[in-house]
Amino acid sequence: MEFSLTTLGVASALPTPTRFPSAHVLNIHGRLFLIDCGEGTQIELRRYGFSFMKFDSIFISHLHGDHIFGLFGLLSTMSLLGRTAPLFIYAPSGFRQILDFMLKEFGKEFHYPVTHVVLRCERPTTIFETKTVTVSAFPLNHSVETYGFIFEENRPALNVFKDKIAEYGLTLEEIGTLKRGEDVRRADGNTLKCEDFTYRPFRPRKYAHCCDTAPFPLESEWIRGADLLYHEATFTSSHVKNNHEAFHSYASEAASVAKEAGVKKLVIGHYSSRYKDGQLREFEDEARRIFPETYLSKEGAKFDIPFEKYSEDE
Amino acid sequence: MEFSLTTLGVASALPTPTRFPSAHVLNIHGRLFLIDCGEGTQIELRRYGFSFMKFDSIFISHLHGDHIFGLFGLLSTMSLLGRTAPLFIYAPSGFRQILDFMLKEFGKEFHYPVTHVVLRCERPTTIFETKTVTVSAFPLNHSVETYGFIFEENRPALNVFKDKIAEYGLTLEEIGTLKRGEDVRRADGNTLKCEDFTYRPFRPRKYAHCCDTAPFPLESEWIRGADLLYHEATFTSSHVKNNHEAFHSYASEAASVAKEAGVKKLVIGHYSSRYKDGQLREFEDEARRIFPETYLSKEGAKFDIPFEKYSEDE
Repeated sequence: MEFSLTTLGVASALPTPTRFPSAHVLNIHGRLFLIDCGEGTQIELRRYGFSFMKFDSIFISHLHGDHIFGLFGLLSTMSLLGRTAPLFIYAPSGFRQILDFMLKEFGKEFHYPVTHVVLRCERPTTIFETKTVTVSAFPLNHSVETYGFIFEENRPALNVFKDKIAEYGLTLEEIGTLKRGEDVRRADGNTLKCEDFTYRPFRPRKYAHCCDTAPFPLESEWIRGADLLYHEATFTSSHVKNNHEAFHSYASEAASVAKEAGVKKLVIGHYSSRYKDGQLREFEDEARRIFPETYLSKEGAKFDIPFEKYSEDE
Repeated sequence: MEFSLTTLGVASALPTPTRFPSAHVLNIHGRLFLIDCGEGTQIELRRYGFSFMKFDSIFISHLHGDHIFGLFGLLSTMSLLGRTAPLFIYAPSGFRQILDFMLKEFGKEFHYPVTHVVLRCERPTTIFETKTVTVSAFPLNHSVETYGFIFEENRPALNVFKDKIAEYGLTLEEIGTLKRGEDVRRADGNTLKCEDFTYRPFRPRKYAHCCDTAPFPLESEWIRGADLLYHEATFTSSHVKNNHEAFHSYASEAASVAKEAGVKKLVIGHYSSRYKDGQLREFEDEARRIFPETYLSKEGAKFDIPFEKYSEDE
């Protein structure tokens, strides 16, 4: 029951010899989701052992090159590897002409359909749902239309405590009623209250992804209670942002969002190329003064959200 | 007076964790030329210390993705770094719509002009010329319109032997005549023959680039006498090529071309992803049985063509 983030591309607009542009892989119960696809993503995926065929949904935050230039190569490679399964790309509306061009110029021999699902919302909105997971998007505060994402495990169905089944001699019908979340009314006039007889077998986990953005008032509310937050931190606060850079965050701002949102752990990345690898510790130090559970993303680093089973004893 | 090839991308269509798609840098007297620009080229350029600003000409052999998908990122990065100098891209005619799209979608803030110079020829044809170097293109034998390139140092101007200047009391006018390659007729009836009084200060060097191609009859004639030949070798001859693969070369075929063309040194690359790094030695062994001066390209490997000065004593 894995739920983990692997950071592959941690650079901002200008890559460095050791830092690729944006790309992140989320593994939820073995299903892989790609968030952003900067140049070189397919090479990074191979380097860290991710099967290209386990992806069927790619989430694109916005249409700046450092978040999408890897799509050309990745889609071509999927084709060369014989892909036939449909691929869905969730991206802002402007992606339409990029995809059309890509398919017209380079997709003539593709044997799989690529569908663009348009992102357009003003508040958190469900964009993807399976039995296991729900993904929602919400707008960020960037220089162009940009979306953050929340990936949540769905709440597991109720289980009935085994010892109570014996103690109360529950029938199959009564068990079914309790599992549906309803109370049982018995012929003898007693009521078996659902809350006393049932539990959720595990705690659903929640991941929030905010890149690229400057902080904004509703941000912490929209991501509240995430177990893991990835938040961009392009600069440390000793750098004075210019007009364009104003749409990015300092490490301290990412940490403040994490604190206000009450998340459990913060991972930062999207570092400006002005910082050498040896200076990234400054990002960590700055953020940890506000939010101690801050960690630096780096190529291939994996951040697990632990599975928490609710035992019958609780 | 450097003349060197650095191989950056040595993979064929499918990159591997250690092999990027096609990209090669030619350094001729400090001026840098990029041949092909597969995904990740800008990262490789940074890794090996090439200044992006020293490139003003990019040569694209053909329009398969593994030879051009790095252009999007490279051109964007050049813009972010403040480029204003014009950039010229030599590529087959179909590149027009790719460049138009690139500039329309991602080039709105570019402050430098990008010019597509159309490659179209049926035999070796000069496409670029400076005081120092001449570049010609010629068609290869691939599944789509594809060009090879020859980069040649221009023949240096004639020098006059210093000892003969004194011995014959040559006037400035006579020296000028000899340097133009003409004989001097003196009033006393003697003729000073140009060939006895002059020499070329160095031997001009020649590089040939053949990727992607299957061998073809005129190939060795067109690249004859190159000091260094880069030739694709996608497979070893133990592999049976399918219809599509028939437009690529075996290591042995690359070696035969090198031998027939009388080149001095062969570098092979464009290895299929079916070969692990540890198997590349098989390419070298196969080629060296035919052409001993064969070397394997790998990421960041540099191949120098030595400068040969012609001394006055010769």
